[in-house]
Amino acid sequence: MASPFDPQREDLFTFGLWTVGNRGRDPFGEPVRPVPDPHHLVRRLAELGAHGVNLHDDDLVPPGASAAERDRIVREFRRTLRDTGMQVPMATTNLFGHPAFKDGAFTSNDPRVRAFALQKTLRAIDLGAELGAGIYVFWGGREGSEADACRDPRAALQRLRWALDFLCGYVLDQGYGLRFALEAKPNEPRGDIYLPTTGHMLHFITTLQHHEMVGVNPEVAHEVMAGLSFPHCVAQAMAAGKLFHVDLNAQKIGRYDQDLRFGSEDQKGALLLVRLLEGTCGGGRYTGPRHFDAHAYRSEDEAGVWEFAKGCMRTYKILAHKARGFDADPEVRALLAEQHDPRLDPLLAGGNSREVAEALRGVSIDADALGRRGLGYERLDQLLVEHLLGVRG
Amino acid sequence: MASPFDPQREDLFTFGLWTVGNRGRDPFGEPVRPVPDPHHLVRRLAELGAHGVNLHDDDLVPPGASAAERDRIVREFRRTLRDTGMQVPMATTNLFGHPAFKDGAFTSNDPRVRAFALQKTLRAIDLGAELGAGIYVFWGGREGSEADACRDPRAALQRLRWALDFLCGYVLDQGYGLRFALEAKPNEPRGDIYLPTTGHMLHFITTLQHHEMVGVNPEVAHEVMAGLSFPHCVAQAMAAGKLFHVDLNAQKIGRYDQDLRFGSEDQKGALLLVRLLEGTCGGGRYTGPRHFDAHAYRSEDEAGVWEFAKGCMRTYKILAHKARGFDADPEVRALLAEQHDPRLDPLLAGGNSREVAEALRGVSIDADALGRRGLGYERLDQLLVEHLLGVRG
Amino acid sequence: MASPFDPQREDLFTFGLWTVGNRGRDPFGEPVRPVPDPHHLVRRLAELGAHGVNLHDDDLVPPGASAAERDRIVREFRRTLRDTGMQVPMATTNLFGHPAFKDGAFTSNDPRVRAFALQKTLRAIDLGAELGAGIYVFWGGREGSEADACRDPRAALQRLRWALDFLCGYVLDQGYGLRFALEAKPNEPRGDIYLPTTGHMLHFITTLQHHEMVGVNPEVAHEVMAGLSFPHCVAQAMAAGKLFHVDLNAQKIGRYDQDLRFGSEDQKGALLLVRLLEGTCGGGRYTGPRHFDAHAYRSEDEAGVWEFAKGCMRTYKILAHKARGFDADPEVRALLAEQHDPRLDPLLAGGNSREVAEALRGVSIDADALGRRGLGYERLDQLLVEHLLGVRG
Amino acid sequence: MASPFDPQREDLFTFGLWTVGNRGRDPFGEPVRPVPDPHHLVRRLAELGAHGVNLHDDDLVPPGASAAERDRIVREFRRTLRDTGMQVPMATTNLFGHPAFKDGAFTSNDPRVRAFALQKTLRAIDLGAELGAGIYVFWGGREGSEADACRDPRAALQRLRWALDFLCGYVLDQGYGLRFALEAKPNEPRGDIYLPTTGHMLHFITTLQHHEMVGVNPEVAHEVMAGLSFPHCVAQAMAAGKLFHVDLNAQKIGRYDQDLRFGSEDQKGALLLVRLLEGTCGGGRYTGPRHFDAHAYRSEDEAGVWEFAKGCMRTYKILAHKARGFDADPEVRALLAEQHDPRLDPLLAGGNSREVAEALRGVSIDADALGRRGLGYERLDQLLVEHLLGVRG
Repeated sequence: MASPFDPQREDLFTFGLWTVGNRGRDPFGEPVRPVPDPHHLVRRLAELGAHGVNLHDDDLVPPGASAAERDRIVREFRRTLRDTGMQVPMATTNLFGHPAFKDGAFTSNDPRVRAFALQKTLRAIDLGAELGAGIYVFWGGREGSEADACRDPRAALQRLRWALDFLCGYVLDQGYGLRFALEAKPNEPRGDIYLPTTGHMLHFITTLQHHEMVGVNPEVAHEVMAGLSFPHCVAQAMAAGKLFHVDLNAQKIGRYDQDLRFGSEDQKGALLLVRLLEGTCGGGRYTGPRHFDAHAYRSEDEAGVWEFAKGCMRTYKILAHKARGFDADPEVRALLAEQHDPRLDPLLAGGNSREVAEALRGVSIDADALGRRGLGYERLDQLLVEHLLGVRG
Repeated sequence: MASPFDPQREDLFTFGLWTVGNRGRDPFGEPVRPVPDPHHLVRRLAELGAHGVNLHDDDLVPPGASAAERDRIVREFRRTLRDTGMQVPMATTNLFGHPAFKDGAFTSNDPRVRAFALQKTLRAIDLGAELGAGIYVFWGGREGSEADACRDPRAALQRLRWALDFLCGYVLDQGYGLRFALEAKPNEPRGDIYLPTTGHMLHFITTLQHHEMVGVNPEVAHEVMAGLSFPHCVAQAMAAGKLFHVDLNAQKIGRYDQDLRFGSEDQKGALLLVRLLEGTCGGGRYTGPRHFDAHAYRSEDEAGVWEFAKGCMRTYKILAHKARGFDADPEVRALLAEQHDPRLDPLLAGGNSREVAEALRGVSIDADALGRRGLGYERLDQLLVEHLLGVRG
Repeated sequence: MASPFDPQREDLFTFGLWTVGNRGRDPFGEPVRPVPDPHHLVRRLAELGAHGVNLHDDDLVPPGASAAERDRIVREFRRTLRDTGMQVPMATTNLFGHPAFKDGAFTSNDPRVRAFALQKTLRAIDLGAELGAGIYVFWGGREGSEADACRDPRAALQRLRWALDFLCGYVLDQGYGLRFALEAKPNEPRGDIYLPTTGHMLHFITTLQHHEMVGVNPEVAHEVMAGLSFPHCVAQAMAAGKLFHVDLNAQKIGRYDQDLRFGSEDQKGALLLVRLLEGTCGGGRYTGPRHFDAHAYRSEDEAGVWEFAKGCMRTYKILAHKARGFDADPEVRALLAEQHDPRLDPLLAGGNSREVAEALRGVSIDADALGRRGLGYERLDQLLVEHLLGVRG
Repeated sequence: MASPFDPQREDLFTFGLWTVGNRGRDPFGEPVRPVPDPHHLVRRLAELGAHGVNLHDDDLVPPGASAAERDRIVREFRRTLRDTGMQVPMATTNLFGHPAFKDGAFTSNDPRVRAFALQKTLRAIDLGAELGAGIYVFWGGREGSEADACRDPRAALQRLRWALDFLCGYVLDQGYGLRFALEAKPNEPRGDIYLPTTGHMLHFITTLQHHEMVGVNPEVAHEVMAGLSFPHCVAQAMAAGKLFHVDLNAQKIGRYDQDLRFGSEDQKGALLLVRLLEGTCGGGRYTGPRHFDAHAYRSEDEAGVWEFAKGCMRTYKILAHKARGFDADPEVRALLAEQHDPRLDPLLAGGNSREVAEALRGVSIDADALGRRGLGYERLDQLLVEHLLGVRG
């Protein structure tokens, strides 16, 4: 039975091969699901209405594969993409799994590790470009420390900057149409990861040589781990024109990286996020892929994995519907109407000048009255909750 | 226009005088709302459909009031209760506001502070009994430390035990029908508060002389501050027959005590909680008051306070409705059906004996097959979310 | 060169085979160290001055080993223990690694899983007894949920209680000299683990049939993950006579289970803990093993593992030395001297009676003066810090 | 008796009037210390060896003071500064205490509130300039939300940017020698504060018109609340040339803003921080004031306040001494020696070119060997701990 919340290609939903292919291994237990076949994953995702699939180099091509094997694998994968109409909008490098990266990749103290990371990334960029990816993600999961004296954090930033400048140069030199998206995370698997939040990343990007081709890939779970507002994070990135990609999932604050099904925690936060991405609150719509960087509980077999994938997409669409309803609600609109003051508006619009500063100083404002005025935010938030719970609108 | 979610007396919703009377002071700012009139608060709560009002001694009777003043205040308050049909199901002592309690009340190193705390509590118990309260709450907000060497934590527990034994003795001696409910909190206003969670409290109660008359008063915000599952906390208290009272509100993990409107954070957690309290998942219904220990945002005037109060009650009833729908959903019931195994059921029912142990050892179990089986929990949780969001059931 | 901080057998330092044998696998990366040889681990620990080694069943005997293999392995291991003088003071069951336990062991909804967990535990208890262990630890790492509707938490507690009652019965029936120690953890690898803190465990134990033979095994990292005070946790367990074992390591609040080298985080907290365990602050000394449940950073090879092990023991002894110095410091003793009041001491010593209550009400106390009095805790804490930093005492 | 750790003027230690003048009010309790006299605070700080004192406008001049009163107060305060040789290196505006700011100052939806905030800040900047301050701090404690739908976070950033551009213009127009330092905080007193970490602030600064005169004022407690590494935060600010000021204190992760005595929590983190500020690990020394934005426990009277102040300064100097010892330790230097590879060094030094990329691809690297190599970080961190504990160096 068709539902208005069934995913469609134009919804731009994507999954990583590593997400629906996640085998359920964790620090205390062994895999519970078999080694996945990428072709099967792509076909099932296509059937479910996804737009595309993303991958790390190693998700598709086993490390150590010969050039011929690699080419055969890529050729067959492209055929499956073509057959299913699926895209690869984003690609990335696994710079965290191999023991060589145990103390970082681009920020390692060892030049051989840094060089190995670059070699692997050059190959992976080529792969991404060959598969038609438009976004190349960098998650530096090992770029951090536990014994923090091991490295000056400024040296780490300097090495990371050098590597990204180098790789931007490579992409430009090759004429690839790729843009980079940097993904922050505060900790895990390292005690403290450098550039722990999207805010730190946004600043770091301003220090890059080719900063115009580098944006961010914020992930719900990563900001929420640190207890930060993900909507605020996304809003800052959007305001800076740097929201190049987004990783959707769910997470509880202050614990291990959970990568839960989108919308399965903090439903109000998820609605606030979807409002921003869909632009129902104004400020423009995010037009890139809605990527679910999550995985099924370890309790699940393959059937559960597809329930997980359907749930992610379905909940997104349900929330998008609610976002439109909330932002069109007349009572909400009245509460959020822009406030004007004819004396002040002209003074608060332009820049500073001696005259404006003097004029501003001279305006009489009854601060105590402002303190007594109620702002109606309990009502506003209750309206949001009631839209969320489906009892209004 | 009447709604099925309008509060009714029989819903047993209660508020503290200190909640709807909260003036909006915080560590960085002054009060934003005027000193409240308790009579006005009671009348408005009654109009909104609340069942009762709870109070600290100082909420009603100003510290230092003469006996005559105290009696007049109490007499007038009882008249307002009678006029409005409102109850005072719970009373408590303010053992945290006065500077004398800056390093604890019952656990202070200073016998004079401990004695002052007892004096104040004896008077406040008398007041609670006079107002007809059935539950007397103890929240030891100052019973903790920052400079932790100041006191052996075992001495603190010993002093607290002594005080509660003493006060239980007093209540029994007076023939008051009061039961005690202990409320845990991990920190704030102290760096670390003794007995930081409901679990610690439950154990502590087993060490009391009159443990049968002492239970717990878990508060959403307090367990959530430590990142613990509030439904698990409440379930353990219910299983122990110790859920004497409950404090409902909302909170984000890992931050200051927010005391937000019930249901305004972690909507899934709120639904799981209401399922337990309403007993829709089996296991019996909690029959005591649904107390909202929360307050309106500081942005609000009095009108906002009442929106806050209405929101708490309304969201509770909306969630109770969803809880019934979820637990009656046939697909949910199928996923949660009890599992049986004719070989094992008899062995897993009784106690240990040599024969049962041997029989159990002898049963052949295909553990690998158990590992491969999917449990359907992604589907189950998505069903919960869809009931929550109002798109199913 | 000998140091007063070199570990000695009588210090009762122990390590798990899984700690010094940890291979450095994590959620994002593969093992970095080879499969360890238990004999080698025992010999090296003995050389370093450890008292003993603890183990999970699977750490020593591979799952699926035949009876003959098992017996050979155990025989050889006992020989190594004998040769080195090492003890096995504690044993435990791995009830978390196998996929069958993906949704819990004793609390699983599936009776076959519960039976499999019991079978495995019966065998592991036999092994522990054979190796002379006095303590048997239960860490129910998988006893929890993410999709919390999957199971009534009260059913989980009931199943866990049944299993522990059954296993206590088995131990008594066999005449093993084992006592049980329950280990709590708030989350990871499950979203929320039942009985998340030592406080919850302490209460749960009071509901067991053979509660006298069951205590707790608190772990620094597990309480700290939830932001709770580990010294307070240990103090409550000691006060209850339930500190049967202790797991020492280090952790930052609010992140994944780090299991860091003892003393490498929160040095003041570590000193406060060692004060309690060594009894330098009074209240008796903990006489059981000082077990380090931690592992070397993933950056380390085998040499680094032994530096890690030495560091754990050495830091413990350094802190024990500082604890003695702090508690003997005359200025500290003056600040912590017990306070007396001749009027109040008799009233605050016995139980409640009408007379005592009346007498207490009648004592005049100047609360405002108590509020103004300074307690000297900044000085006290600074003294603690200066002892810690080695610039005093 | 003189100690090498006694504070000296040239150590550049500063305190806020609001820190040593803190009255000990908190969300649950009343003030415990009397209204402080600023002159007395300055004199005592001078006696203790502090370099200067910082202030909010309202700390010195009561809101609502007449121009004449204001001038008299400032004149007298300058006299005390002159008499004591104390500086006012930093000034700031209280934009959080008055009820008018309950929903933000510069980001309020109400133009009158924004104008009132500007008026107050213009006056406060004049005051700061008159007192000779070189740094003007902005902490937007109320710039945030609980009911997050109340405002598009992008509008909030836009309003904040406008205000800072305006105020930079004012400072330049007046010819004041002030630079601005922005201070981030993740939450409290708001549910979520915009620009929650120093990373977000650093990026925001790049979007300002006069970004060259704007840097950051990171505060230990604020980054630690979110569980982030404060040394990494400071390092990123130093690398960007934006560490204009620093707020030193102590805090536990994931709880209310504690503002504890410097060094009283996370001693290792404090040492890592002092290494950076003192430049003992290379990379240059921070030359601005060491400002302690902390306050005495509520248990303290005035004597305790001065113990608190002495403790902050003394612990800083003790840690600076240890930092020098650690970084001069030959074993540490050996572990941290820069690593070279003659094949790779030239390739990893310059920028990208087709030739370099090809050369890099061609270098043979034994990744597995890199994975097996131990890095000695357990030893390194243990050395750090032993320097910290004063048993080495």
